[in-house]
Amino acid sequence: MLDHYMVGRLIDLWLAEDIGACDLTCQAMIAADAKGTFRMNAREPQTVAGVDVAAMVFRHYDPTLDVKLTARDGDKAVKGTPLMTISGNARSVLTAERTALNIVQHMSGIATLTARFVAEIAGTKARLIDTRKTTPGLRMLEKHAVICGGGANHRLGLDGGVMIKDNHIVVSGSIVAAVARARASIPSLTKIEVECDRLEQVREALAANADVIMLDNMSLDDMRAAVKLVDGRVPLEASGGVRFETVRGIAETGVDFISTSRITQAAPAVDIGLDDAN
Amino acid sequence: MLDHYMVGRLIDLWLAEDIGACDLTCQAMIAADAKGTFRMNAREPQTVAGVDVAAMVFRHYDPTLDVKLTARDGDKAVKGTPLMTISGNARSVLTAERTALNIVQHMSGIATLTARFVAEIAGTKARLIDTRKTTPGLRMLEKHAVICGGGANHRLGLDGGVMIKDNHIVVSGSIVAAVARARASIPSLTKIEVECDRLEQVREALAANADVIMLDNMSLDDMRAAVKLVDGRVPLEASGGVRFETVRGIAETGVDFISTSRITQAAPAVDIGLDDAN
Amino acid sequence: MLDHYMVGRLIDLWLAEDIGACDLTCQAMIAADAKGTFRMNAREPQTVAGVDVAAMVFRHYDPTLDVKLTARDGDKAVKGTPLMTISGNARSVLTAERTALNIVQHMSGIATLTARFVAEIAGTKARLIDTRKTTPGLRMLEKHAVICGGGANHRLGLDGGVMIKDNHIVVSGSIVAAVARARASIPSLTKIEVECDRLEQVREALAANADVIMLDNMSLDDMRAAVKLVDGRVPLEASGGVRFETVRGIAETGVDFISTSRITQAAPAVDIGLDDAN
Amino acid sequence: MLDHYMVGRLIDLWLAEDIGACDLTCQAMIAADAKGTFRMNAREPQTVAGVDVAAMVFRHYDPTLDVKLTARDGDKAVKGTPLMTISGNARSVLTAERTALNIVQHMSGIATLTARFVAEIAGTKARLIDTRKTTPGLRMLEKHAVICGGGANHRLGLDGGVMIKDNHIVVSGSIVAAVARARASIPSLTKIEVECDRLEQVREALAANADVIMLDNMSLDDMRAAVKLVDGRVPLEASGGVRFETVRGIAETGVDFISTSRITQAAPAVDIGLDDAN
Amino acid sequence: MLDHYMVGRLIDLWLAEDIGACDLTCQAMIAADAKGTFRMNAREPQTVAGVDVAAMVFRHYDPTLDVKLTARDGDKAVKGTPLMTISGNARSVLTAERTALNIVQHMSGIATLTARFVAEIAGTKARLIDTRKTTPGLRMLEKHAVICGGGANHRLGLDGGVMIKDNHIVVSGSIVAAVARARASIPSLTKIEVECDRLEQVREALAANADVIMLDNMSLDDMRAAVKLVDGRVPLEASGGVRFETVRGIAETGVDFISTSRITQAAPAVDIGLDDAN
Amino acid sequence: MLDHYMVGRLIDLWLAEDIGACDLTCQAMIAADAKGTFRMNAREPQTVAGVDVAAMVFRHYDPTLDVKLTARDGDKAVKGTPLMTISGNARSVLTAERTALNIVQHMSGIATLTARFVAEIAGTKARLIDTRKTTPGLRMLEKHAVICGGGANHRLGLDGGVMIKDNHIVVSGSIVAAVARARASIPSLTKIEVECDRLEQVREALAANADVIMLDNMSLDDMRAAVKLVDGRVPLEASGGVRFETVRGIAETGVDFISTSRITQAAPAVDIGLDDAN
Repeated sequence: MLDHYMVGRLIDLWLAEDIGACDLTCQAMIAADAKGTFRMNAREPQTVAGVDVAAMVFRHYDPTLDVKLTARDGDKAVKGTPLMTISGNARSVLTAERTALNIVQHMSGIATLTARFVAEIAGTKARLIDTRKTTPGLRMLEKHAVICGGGANHRLGLDGGVMIKDNHIVVSGSIVAAVARARASIPSLTKIEVECDRLEQVREALAANADVIMLDNMSLDDMRAAVKLVDGRVPLEASGGVRFETVRGIAETGVDFISTSRITQAAPAVDIGLDDAN
Repeated sequence: MLDHYMVGRLIDLWLAEDIGACDLTCQAMIAADAKGTFRMNAREPQTVAGVDVAAMVFRHYDPTLDVKLTARDGDKAVKGTPLMTISGNARSVLTAERTALNIVQHMSGIATLTARFVAEIAGTKARLIDTRKTTPGLRMLEKHAVICGGGANHRLGLDGGVMIKDNHIVVSGSIVAAVARARASIPSLTKIEVECDRLEQVREALAANADVIMLDNMSLDDMRAAVKLVDGRVPLEASGGVRFETVRGIAETGVDFISTSRITQAAPAVDIGLDDAN
Repeated sequence: MLDHYMVGRLIDLWLAEDIGACDLTCQAMIAADAKGTFRMNAREPQTVAGVDVAAMVFRHYDPTLDVKLTARDGDKAVKGTPLMTISGNARSVLTAERTALNIVQHMSGIATLTARFVAEIAGTKARLIDTRKTTPGLRMLEKHAVICGGGANHRLGLDGGVMIKDNHIVVSGSIVAAVARARASIPSLTKIEVECDRLEQVREALAANADVIMLDNMSLDDMRAAVKLVDGRVPLEASGGVRFETVRGIAETGVDFISTSRITQAAPAVDIGLDDAN
Repeated sequence: MLDHYMVGRLIDLWLAEDIGACDLTCQAMIAADAKGTFRMNAREPQTVAGVDVAAMVFRHYDPTLDVKLTARDGDKAVKGTPLMTISGNARSVLTAERTALNIVQHMSGIATLTARFVAEIAGTKARLIDTRKTTPGLRMLEKHAVICGGGANHRLGLDGGVMIKDNHIVVSGSIVAAVARARASIPSLTKIEVECDRLEQVREALAANADVIMLDNMSLDDMRAAVKLVDGRVPLEASGGVRFETVRGIAETGVDFISTSRITQAAPAVDIGLDDAN
Repeated sequence: MLDHYMVGRLIDLWLAEDIGACDLTCQAMIAADAKGTFRMNAREPQTVAGVDVAAMVFRHYDPTLDVKLTARDGDKAVKGTPLMTISGNARSVLTAERTALNIVQHMSGIATLTARFVAEIAGTKARLIDTRKTTPGLRMLEKHAVICGGGANHRLGLDGGVMIKDNHIVVSGSIVAAVARARASIPSLTKIEVECDRLEQVREALAANADVIMLDNMSLDDMRAAVKLVDGRVPLEASGGVRFETVRGIAETGVDFISTSRITQAAPAVDIGLDDAN
Repeated sequence: MLDHYMVGRLIDLWLAEDIGACDLTCQAMIAADAKGTFRMNAREPQTVAGVDVAAMVFRHYDPTLDVKLTARDGDKAVKGTPLMTISGNARSVLTAERTALNIVQHMSGIATLTARFVAEIAGTKARLIDTRKTTPGLRMLEKHAVICGGGANHRLGLDGGVMIKDNHIVVSGSIVAAVARARASIPSLTKIEVECDRLEQVREALAANADVIMLDNMSLDDMRAAVKLVDGRVPLEASGGVRFETVRGIAETGVDFISTSRITQAAPAVDIGLDDAN
């Protein structure tokens, strides 16, 4: 779920931010024509995400660099796994290094945490999905990392679906009226999800032909009841209070999706470094 | 350390990313002329950073919104502390809401973790500083958040200082030669820092008139020896292996700066939400 | 379905294109401090679309201009209906005039043609929808114009839905397999539409839990059979060979959507002009 | 009259608009390393314009695609004429397809209508020219399409010439004064055109050394009289009421240019499609 | 000849270049809410150009600043003449100061040198014009400054006129053929200028209906002969070897335009400063 | 001190400015497939700067052009020295020519004047440095040209150092307080310079541990006294009244840096041209 052409438009911003006017150290200390070969290595166990984005950073900065990937997004790496080799102008590699590392460390951090959650719910039918709680400027990169970790995506942005909440229902008079109102104006391939706090609302959302129903902060008992009530007619998403400790219990209620912001908002970067390969 | 004009240039990217073509939900469910008043509240204890950036997000999206700050960057907030009030067109507030929250949650997360580290070294002369290991696209925002948390900044980017490392020393023949080479080409207000692995290098860096000396992954004993050796002539920066558990011990060696990537790479977002204030 | 913040980002391009270095005529012939009041008028009957976009063009070029709308998107205008009044610096109004007129003429042309199609199918349950066959750079403006004319939108872009075609079915082995494959990777609020050439495929698409089924270039008889077969379980979209002469017959088969590129690709601009109102 | 470097700057906008976050269908249904060969074919008779622009769309999206043109701008194509062949990564071709088709269909539509007008005035000395009534964002593309259809261009933008109208004449006191005023401030290679409603003004414009004289909504008799009066000293442009039915009569009056907005504002897109060539 | 909307697009680049991440000095030394009033003063005699551009720099950086112009472009200033007063947030004024000063010093330098050349040819019919030899990124600003100094503009860019040179004539076979070829493809309000080295070419250019004839590096005698030969039928431009010492002699030959790159390529910045006005 | 990636972002602006819609002359007069070889030559003695930037202009406009440098930045060229050869599509070379020449002429002008100043102070320990008084949009290009001429750079922008001036000292109470205040908030590799008008301030700045001390408009006697007083503990920069006639005297006082705006604000472009090499 990552369009490389669109990502290319961001790299310019990232490089400009780190380089500013120029890399004073490289220009002072490294000969303009020095060549080198460098290897990017995982320095701790991780689920890899963003290696091709990191490769694009190097190529964007200097199209003459030769970048060879030795790992793919979604791979499980151990300490020491080589992710890519970069050869060519040494100044170029060293100037782009930090930007390339920063993005792959960030994305792999998200993939790694996602993979932990996904492993925790293995064997259930539930799929772990993300939210719109992502780092500004990195939405698609982070959603791609979630997929690398075995998760899936909720809507990509505000134009990717309708979420009907309490205040919308109040304004419209009922869930049925709210869904009808949304259906009347939205693109034909867009789904409508209704947030429900209690079973009664789930029943009404079903009657309203909602496309997806969110069980918002419900107890496990209520979730189980909702699963029974809906009986597979529309997907159910559990949301609220999802932590590593609680996720399996939720998954075992039989819901289709479990959404959590933790995988994008609380994933520490993993350790990845660049080493001279000569 | 945050220029609001420069930040303004990023907001466009953030909003475009979340909105895409348009906010389908708001346009379907909220009347075009509906008005509202909303309050942004801290939902857990935190050190606040980015409230004015979040305010700019709302104002950028719709300059007619009235945004009043009730907290300032650097404040300690408790659960329930109101951070700002936003009044005006309800669609505008709700469409910009997530972007505004995402940035202030991210920045306050960094400030909060930084403040924990800073409290841990209170009473020593050491200052906690960040690194260039920041999230691509958010460098200045994150460095500002570090300051809000009581920390300070290492160089802002590659044009903000020279870092002389092992391979530069090898290429130049000696630390003295490396520093001289750098000094010959860099801007007159830029400092040169030399990374030293052992005391002997510290001695040489001092002789070379380095402006700052980094003690890279040294033992506490070696750090203490370096402090004694340098005797205040240039600032010393401790780097490597800095964790919450180790930071006080390092600070007590007498170094001037302790740098760590953890405050920018491992700070979970804090909980902040928007509530209807009507 | 038009986010004004996002539209604002395009106006810069439009103005730059027409102005180039500067408006030689205005600068030579109009005093720098001349004031004027101008009225934008419909010069033929039309369904109006884009009046607020045209107003934004004037305000973008010169924020001191006072623009008052006297018509709203979706209004039916006759020859002579005033659409807006612009007062202020005369140079500014005249320099921005052509760009403002060009966009409102273009959008109203689309709305007007759409309204003709929509009127033709009045009384049926079918909704007229657009396609991705739009003018490069004007996607959202044209889709908004379709809504102003009483139509609705198909997906907004490639990230707004999945369209499964023949070659995808071949690659996947069956419609069921193709739908399952798509479902596994797409965001949770995104629908999947399957293009069907014949009834047998419709049956399979239904079994595959497609969210929408397209009847591609089917005969009216086949369409009627499909409507009967599907019986309201999923929406049906008729596509191919849709012309003003054929659209009512298609609508009367009972399909839910009729999509056509003609409303965006073959709508002549309508006549709208700016007159001195002094 | 089309600078490819300048066009390249627009393509980014067009692709971003259609792709949004990513092409969900392609990424779900087409293998990342699938290869293909596709042919773009005319599906109705047309005058071709924009084939190299369409080729640039493919190459911009993915520089590894191999695009071979089999037609050139200005060619007359019949139903089935191949315009280009694109080989390489199948996802890339399919993701860029709609944007490439949309622009070439739009431009060829304009060239085709222009060619009809041009054929209608064949044998006269009149040249058909366009106006500034073009689609916002596509000015140069549309003006290039006019040339492909055998027409010519009026000024490219507001910095490409001076148009003196009634109100300028009133403000300046006379046509002579207005032309002198313009001449005093404009670049030395820029022409001045005076809009004339009646013969008396033509005489005055001639005396004022206007570079071009526009006959604005004049009767055929007046046009003939103007041609006689001016006798080749400056070019004459007929404007107003130009339709396919009237254009030959106007051309036969002996004017040099006939300008019309119809070729850019009322040209339906022509049918062009992409077919699998394997 | 300066469109302020278009200039506004450049200011962002200028400010970003000087500010980088932030103004470290202001942020460290000036209170965030400090207010001030500053006056921009001429510090040597000059012809002023760019005061409104400088004012835009301040307003762009901080729209709350109050900027009052006390001089206008084209004014003659003496040492001490106040150009504008800026009041408001002190940090904002000081951060934007250098960028504002740099542009007004540069533009006024050009206006001042132009005015010297213009004064030198006073009383002749010749007008001093510029060339395309301008500083990259500042074309329109510099051409505006030339006008402020009493000069006029040659074409604004490559789309603003045709220049036929020796090699074009060789390729086309003759001047007549070259002019006809150009006329066939260019916009209807664009002039064609032919560069002539000798009188014989002037005669041919006249026959070819060139719109302007350039006398390229001709002797004063040849220029006089050309003036006589052409006798006012088309404007003549003298080019080559134009220096302050030679310009009057050239002007007295009777040519219409004298073009020189010196006014844009060799004009030192004039001294202008900002003083605290409290 | 020139990052070519960052420079690449400016070239787009420069080309767009000169080309506008298109190069009317080239498109009319030069065959689309004409090939040529051209040589760029120095036409007067000069210190070369910007040849690789000029080469980038050609390659940016048309990546198929073959550009071979025959001189390097910093070289001394005589009249006739070839700087580079460009081969390939003739239209491309001629369309990009003026932009390429304008930048290399401007930069070499600065390098040439800088080299004159540097030669004048040869044998002293003083280094000639620039200021922030540069042409808006060309900061880094001009600072690079200064280095090509043998000079060095003061800070690159407002984020590259702190300059403490009189009003800062007043606000803070003393130089010692001002330096401490700055030190508390700035990045760890950034220097603080204090502007001093008299010796007493130099003494205080020394006590305050300023990193660099500026002697602002001091007499030669005072400069000598300052040099003696400081005795090498921190670098001294002489500023104010620096002209070619005075620079050697200043250098002989023993200061470390002499800064002047003349090398960037008063350097005439040098003569460089493009010749057909066939």
